[in-house]
Amino acid sequence: MTVQLNPRERILMGPGPSTVPHRILRAIGAPTLGHLDPQYIGYMDETCEMLRKVFQTSNALTFPVSGTGMAGMEAVVVNLLEPGDEVIVCINGVFGGRMKDNMERAGATVHAIEVPWGETFTEESLAEAVTMYPNAKMVGIVHAETSTGAHQDLTSLGKIVHDAGMLLAVDAVTSLGGHELKVDDWGIDAIYSGTQKCLSCPPGLAPVSFSPRAIEKMESRKSKVQSWYLDVSMLKNYYTGGGGRAYHHTAPINMVYALREALAIVLEEGLENRVNRHREMHLLLREGLEKLGLQYIPENSLCTLNCVSVPDGIDEGAIRRRLLDEYDIEIGGGLGVFAGKAWRIGLMGHGATRRNVGTLIAALEDCLA
Amino acid sequence: MTVQLNPRERILMGPGPSTVPHRILRAIGAPTLGHLDPQYIGYMDETCEMLRKVFQTSNALTFPVSGTGMAGMEAVVVNLLEPGDEVIVCINGVFGGRMKDNMERAGATVHAIEVPWGETFTEESLAEAVTMYPNAKMVGIVHAETSTGAHQDLTSLGKIVHDAGMLLAVDAVTSLGGHELKVDDWGIDAIYSGTQKCLSCPPGLAPVSFSPRAIEKMESRKSKVQSWYLDVSMLKNYYTGGGGRAYHHTAPINMVYALREALAIVLEEGLENRVNRHREMHLLLREGLEKLGLQYIPENSLCTLNCVSVPDGIDEGAIRRRLLDEYDIEIGGGLGVFAGKAWRIGLMGHGATRRNVGTLIAALEDCLA
Repeated sequence: MTVQLNPRERILMGPGPSTVPHRILRAIGAPTLGHLDPQYIGYMDETCEMLRKVFQTSNALTFPVSGTGMAGMEAVVVNLLEPGDEVIVCINGVFGGRMKDNMERAGATVHAIEVPWGETFTEESLAEAVTMYPNAKMVGIVHAETSTGAHQDLTSLGKIVHDAGMLLAVDAVTSLGGHELKVDDWGIDAIYSGTQKCLSCPPGLAPVSFSPRAIEKMESRKSKVQSWYLDVSMLKNYYTGGGGRAYHHTAPINMVYALREALAIVLEEGLENRVNRHREMHLLLREGLEKLGLQYIPENSLCTLNCVSVPDGIDEGAIRRRLLDEYDIEIGGGLGVFAGKAWRIGLMGHGATRRNVGTLIAALEDCLA
Repeated sequence: MTVQLNPRERILMGPGPSTVPHRILRAIGAPTLGHLDPQYIGYMDETCEMLRKVFQTSNALTFPVSGTGMAGMEAVVVNLLEPGDEVIVCINGVFGGRMKDNMERAGATVHAIEVPWGETFTEESLAEAVTMYPNAKMVGIVHAETSTGAHQDLTSLGKIVHDAGMLLAVDAVTSLGGHELKVDDWGIDAIYSGTQKCLSCPPGLAPVSFSPRAIEKMESRKSKVQSWYLDVSMLKNYYTGGGGRAYHHTAPINMVYALREALAIVLEEGLENRVNRHREMHLLLREGLEKLGLQYIPENSLCTLNCVSVPDGIDEGAIRRRLLDEYDIEIGGGLGVFAGKAWRIGLMGHGATRRNVGTLIAALEDCLA
């Protein structure tokens, strides 16, 4: 017989998932409805409407893809690119690199511009890139690079990209619900995120949004989208189909319950309050970490993900294991070129609290003593 | 403010999702762990081990894809086929047709063999097909055609397909956990299912299994798998990687809790008992439906999905709405060529009970009076 499920109540302060509040865990366990049940369609519509508010967009085509954040990335890439399309991708960490890989698999000709891990892209470098590759159809960039903690300023990129006649696609996996993010004001044409970061919902859905300009590009495709599961031309009938609601695939009902609850919590707090709370907790954590002698790697650090160098001579894995075993606290190790060299400390959504910051700093102090 | 989530406690007797038992709803709401947490890895390993038992396979590469059933179909197709590969697909309903669409999107040259909706394929027709298309690399077939209720006998197809040097890929979305299904004995090389049918788990995961022969085909690929999210060459490091457990994407933790619980329930009941229960409940339902004058469409009916013709002059949608509104019972309408002409009544997993059969027959009798 299988041992009873009894997961420990960890404080999740890694790169995600973040700690899920009990209110959302109750929601995910509500009775499952059919995916065409009018009551469920109502819940789904409310979920999409709240997603629009959190993305700060009026894009009709805003919905949760039935997969985790990486499925959101793939949905954006395979729907907007066709074989032979040129595209520019900005790489300063793991996720920019993955975007490139996805674009290549979609048959695109990819022009990568790179800065060292931990750095971000300037307006000038973007302006140069769109001049250098004038035939590109799209620019892909990561708002919150989860592998380095770098915070990319996006406020003025939309104009540069649009003036060049291109679309702007953004990875907002670690920023949605934690950082300022204005899809319409910033001219973002396609964006994807995940539920398990600053929304504090379990992993399993990837909120996405497409601008009318992006829809135009999709509607002028010459070839079918290579992924059936992620083909937005079919998905949009289910998510925005009004009376029709054609069956495409069975939506992950209970995950949608959880996302709906998570978004309600975000809107109850208010976007501005929430962003401010993340900033305040980040400053508090930063003060504590720097007092312990730890240094931030990126110049423009995210509030939601704090990436610090591991001091020389420290076995970073051993410290993480102690935090997990003795304190039930999870933090993340480095990824890619930072493997073994960095810790990644998440302050996301429900977990971005004074109590968690104090608890982690005390535990880290003990482990580093 | 958002209205509180309060889904009605429907009896789900449509084509899925099926009614989820409270024990699984409790499991899905357990505290979220990190996806690299040793405790979570343990739960995941147990889940894969139980999946092997339920699939009746020793395939090491057996795991839940992080998406719903259709993501499982796409995972099988895009990993096993490369552009230019020839493939045979058997179409007798919606899902065979979708397999064809997926195969074409993967760049394969697809040879479709068809029988009318509701019918199934004979050994002879398969033997003919592999002779007619000797260069095909794979044969795709649906075990339980959810759109028609037809039950495809698979016991002897493996030999025919293997003797022709091809792989056998099977859609078992509506049979896993409800019908006899012997992956190894029947020579199935790749199989996918969904959680929301006879496992009575919420939708959101697609159990898959690949034979060593299928792995050989994947390892000899000349091109990258077109889907990054579903690329088994990377996924296998996470699911079967032993010590390594390389991060690929964040698994849907709470969905895995639910699947683990669902599989434990299946194994506690015992596969044979479970299959027998589905058969008994099907016979009971059939007796009741036929007494009401309703006729089964397929000759070889599934036990898990019962597809009957709507009597002339009946507004089938109105009956379904009454069942939903007055009885909180969901049954399904027809799909594809059966739209408006059929009802699809699921008897899956937790919902395949004497009580549900009696309740539905009484309600239907009332609505049809």
